[in-house]
Amino acid sequence: MAADTTMRTFGAKRLEAFIASALAALGLPESDAGICAARMTESDLRGVDTHGIFRLPHYCQRIRVGGINLRPKVHLVRENAVTALVNGDNAMGQVVMTYATQLAIKKAAEAGLAWVGTFNGNHAGCAAVYSTMPVAHDMVGMYMTVANGNHMPPWGGVERILGTNPISVAIPAGKEPPIALDIATTVVSQGKVKLAAQKGEAMPVGWMIDRNGQPLTDPKRSSEGFLLPIGGYKGYGLNVVIGMLAGVLNGAAFGRNVVDFSKDFATKNNSGHMILAMRVDNFQPADAFKGEMDRVIREIRESERMEGVDRIWLPGEMEFYKIQERLARGIPLNAALVEQLRQLAKELKLADRLE
Amino acid sequence: MAADTTMRTFGAKRLEAFIASALAALGLPESDAGICAARMTESDLRGVDTHGIFRLPHYCQRIRVGGINLRPKVHLVRENAVTALVNGDNAMGQVVMTYATQLAIKKAAEAGLAWVGTFNGNHAGCAAVYSTMPVAHDMVGMYMTVANGNHMPPWGGVERILGTNPISVAIPAGKEPPIALDIATTVVSQGKVKLAAQKGEAMPVGWMIDRNGQPLTDPKRSSEGFLLPIGGYKGYGLNVVIGMLAGVLNGAAFGRNVVDFSKDFATKNNSGHMILAMRVDNFQPADAFKGEMDRVIREIRESERMEGVDRIWLPGEMEFYKIQERLARGIPLNAALVEQLRQLAKELKLADRLE
Repeated sequence: MAADTTMRTFGAKRLEAFIASALAALGLPESDAGICAARMTESDLRGVDTHGIFRLPHYCQRIRVGGINLRPKVHLVRENAVTALVNGDNAMGQVVMTYATQLAIKKAAEAGLAWVGTFNGNHAGCAAVYSTMPVAHDMVGMYMTVANGNHMPPWGGVERILGTNPISVAIPAGKEPPIALDIATTVVSQGKVKLAAQKGEAMPVGWMIDRNGQPLTDPKRSSEGFLLPIGGYKGYGLNVVIGMLAGVLNGAAFGRNVVDFSKDFATKNNSGHMILAMRVDNFQPADAFKGEMDRVIREIRESERMEGVDRIWLPGEMEFYKIQERLARGIPLNAALVEQLRQLAKELKLADRLE
Repeated sequence: MAADTTMRTFGAKRLEAFIASALAALGLPESDAGICAARMTESDLRGVDTHGIFRLPHYCQRIRVGGINLRPKVHLVRENAVTALVNGDNAMGQVVMTYATQLAIKKAAEAGLAWVGTFNGNHAGCAAVYSTMPVAHDMVGMYMTVANGNHMPPWGGVERILGTNPISVAIPAGKEPPIALDIATTVVSQGKVKLAAQKGEAMPVGWMIDRNGQPLTDPKRSSEGFLLPIGGYKGYGLNVVIGMLAGVLNGAAFGRNVVDFSKDFATKNNSGHMILAMRVDNFQPADAFKGEMDRVIREIRESERMEGVDRIWLPGEMEFYKIQERLARGIPLNAALVEQLRQLAKELKLADRLE
């Protein structure tokens, strides 16, 4: 029987309330449940469906088996005017990273620049949700994290000890959408490989290689191969550096001690993240900078296009328009996910069963 | 007639003195000539031959036609405890970036973290030469710059308004070589394409595309095509973000106003750079951190290798061993370059004619 591909659309506020009520029903403090719901819904609004409500059943499972501290004391271990090390106390990743990002913004507002690192955290969802927070304060944001599972070997290796370690950078603009780069350092995510397998489609050359370094294009054989880094050894190097700055520097997991959070729900992740915030007016008056950003953005967008290309996009621009669209029209969820969420609502006796 | 491929080897100190004397003969203050010579020789020692003495004839040409300010006043435009904007006053790029990096280290030593940006600069050579300077002070270094020439269109475009915009990140280690990532955000540099053309070799698929987005493999047709970013749209986004942080934020050139320094020797480059320095002991005691870096580095290096692969390398490790090798055995230069340098020495009446 073919999978039900019907989409159902829900208002963002409704889904946010649904997530918050589910997490609260499992024992998360209401404020923490609200923070997680806000960050996850922001991800769905951006069109990053893999890091929004789609993760809720998974997160709930982790909470149920005791993989998350329900009464965490997120706290500072070290601090000065421009840096801080945050112990996440095994709280939900969204809670730790929201704390860290707000702290970075506060410090940068006072000192001009701040770098906050976290350990003892968990999967925090969509990277751009954090990197873009400083933008509202006329600040640049930069976020890096160690992914919660290893699917890539070092360059020349065959042992999976590296993840998709993403980097996200956000930069304010004026009338134009702010820049928001959000990229994994692998060519594709493990999720895209799974999707190709579900659809029965071959993968393009360049997504994966097998143990002999040969292209692997059959997604059903993905367990025999490895994700490839962007730009070969270059992306491998960037991946390692991100792992060291977001992981090792914070005393968080990187390499063999990373827990695969899609297989092991109970073991502490000790997930590491970093966020940097910097006021643009350290360098230019904010309005002048944003005006110049607009000029450069338009120059790039309006430059000559390849035949058949309708539009040149800037990093984060598609997501910016997706937010407008989904705020107006709602967030579409596929039937299988809706069914999963209804089951969850029933188990947790939530008021809203998404009927 | 085949090109003379004989290599001649010179001691690093001798080449450094040669560069300094050539630049001084052209009117650069001795201290500035010395700084340029030091940074260029460090590049040659690292094995980054494209950014060492190889550039000297080119730099000399720029000085001769008045493209460089021989009596620059490199100075601060804005400053606080953790950031600074440096006006390079059209000095040699190495002079501006050495000033900026030393300032970042000084500020980070006091405050823990610093970000220094520059404008009105010039090509500064090898990125890792700057990002690794903070490492000796137990600091992380991060460097970005806008490349001095545009060879890549935006993703989906055909107009060359982006350069190879590189990023370099250096991280201290203990007994292991420090990490030093130094990557362009294009798959290859324009230089590698020229080299393939000289050798009469076809380029691999993935280096360049033509105006229709099809792979371009004949390096003799490179003017009809474009360099590709690492990871497709991901590398394009990273490239743009680097351009904005190193260029736009500093009031430096990015996009159409970038001067192609290999074609135009007279027009001010207004080249932009940024350097970040951060003490690792904001987060961990330095020795503990470096010990953990050693452990992680060894874990990666000693992980299982692909058949036929002799060794897994960490970012910057090859360059680290190259420095040892070239300090001991000298820096090899090809015959054509030696001939060019001898000609230069004759014109400038230098004491050392590299005979």
